[in-house]
Amino acid sequence: MGRIYTAALCIIGDEILSGRTQDKNVAQIALWLNVQGIRLMEVRVVPDIQDKIVKAVNELRAAYDYLFTTGGIGPTHDDITVDAIAAALDVPVVEHPEARAMLERYYAKIGGELTQARLRMARVPQGADLIRNPVSGAPGIHVENIYIMAGIPHITAGMMEGLTGTLEGGNPVISKTVGAYAPESEISELLKDLIKRFDGIAVGSYPFFKEGKVGSNFVVRAEDEVLANAAIEALGAALDEAGFPSVPGGI
Amino acid sequence: MGRIYTAALCIIGDEILSGRTQDKNVAQIALWLNVQGIRLMEVRVVPDIQDKIVKAVNELRAAYDYLFTTGGIGPTHDDITVDAIAAALDVPVVEHPEARAMLERYYAKIGGELTQARLRMARVPQGADLIRNPVSGAPGIHVENIYIMAGIPHITAGMMEGLTGTLEGGNPVISKTVGAYAPESEISELLKDLIKRFDGIAVGSYPFFKEGKVGSNFVVRAEDEVLANAAIEALGAALDEAGFPSVPGGI
Repeated sequence: MGRIYTAALCIIGDEILSGRTQDKNVAQIALWLNVQGIRLMEVRVVPDIQDKIVKAVNELRAAYDYLFTTGGIGPTHDDITVDAIAAALDVPVVEHPEARAMLERYYAKIGGELTQARLRMARVPQGADLIRNPVSGAPGIHVENIYIMAGIPHITAGMMEGLTGTLEGGNPVISKTVGAYAPESEISELLKDLIKRFDGIAVGSYPFFKEGKVGSNFVVRAEDEVLANAAIEALGAALDEAGFPSVPGGI
Repeated sequence: MGRIYTAALCIIGDEILSGRTQDKNVAQIALWLNVQGIRLMEVRVVPDIQDKIVKAVNELRAAYDYLFTTGGIGPTHDDITVDAIAAALDVPVVEHPEARAMLERYYAKIGGELTQARLRMARVPQGADLIRNPVSGAPGIHVENIYIMAGIPHITAGMMEGLTGTLEGGNPVISKTVGAYAPESEISELLKDLIKRFDGIAVGSYPFFKEGKVGSNFVVRAEDEVLANAAIEALGAALDEAGFPSVPGGI
């Protein structure tokens, strides 16, 4: 096993904390990070308040290899992410010439004016470079180990696309699932035995209630695909033997 | 304006951090808390690792009036929330007689055995009481200012139902929305003026792209409904005047 690369995600947005908007970024970023060989270890959601953002950013960028942020990079008064991250890094906010040029071209093309409000979107913490966004064109911002992305999920996805393959990572975690109509309380010993038998795996148990029956999906996670496959097969066999017919891939 | 009551939510679960499961608890808990007059100020998602849970729990319970947790209270090896919270509080884990009695009745009824694994679900941090769940029967756990709830959203909902009206809170935040096919970058000055004019409001701007047009929904939040109504009407009028017909309630 090589080095494990870790990341945190800081979601900046009153709209998530008020319940107005259902977050979709955690899952899509988590899945994408895993493909990059990076493990999402912590998520924080903080309000649009500079002190709260600064505190979270400083704690998370120190604790993990990478910090990703989403939200608060638009043109309005509540978009304070760039200012807060500059404050966290103790650097000034500057205009990025390439970002300004991109905005100039964009508004010339659509016939709009490059107002002061729109120029806000060319502001970056000093020392930053841009994250290309092949999907929507709107760039993200990279500074030190921080990757500043949009909050709107399909724009976030474009920025991830631009970052794909550029981040140093380790091995992705392989997940294998098996399901059974077994109450998880009846197979807890079986799971403990599995973990003892296969060194290097983690096992999650996710109960559900479907068509009037209780059951669980069991997920084996490991860096090594051979190990993950061996463990999930052993688990399926053990479930069958215990009288709970196993469903490869989960229910 | 009375005192502001605050809360944090700590989501315990590898399944969220791996991207396997799309979180649904943040939004439902946020909306419910607001009705109780409590503001959700921070969310953290942490893995099923005791040290990480202990650290988050201790920081969050100290920083806010209430701490809610979801996840990790089932019968399997990866359900370590009770142990971690007991460790955070530096109290032992004990069996709660009422929780044990509930499990005994339940398994007698369905004809199952009360195994060691199932008895795990009667364990609580010393000094805790149970949170009644009128919906699914499964109780949550309350200890000090911490409310320990299930991770499965409909069971979480039952526990919130049991807590409804029992928590001390202040005034709910009133949200009013108006939408317009206006690029948010063109009305940022207008929003700034609104905030200056109506003291005590917060305004969020949420851009969207629908039917080939860009637009934004604008949310005014305030504790005072009269103030929120006055501000949203003024905003609607200002949008109309700027040439962006306003849509009350949002687009």
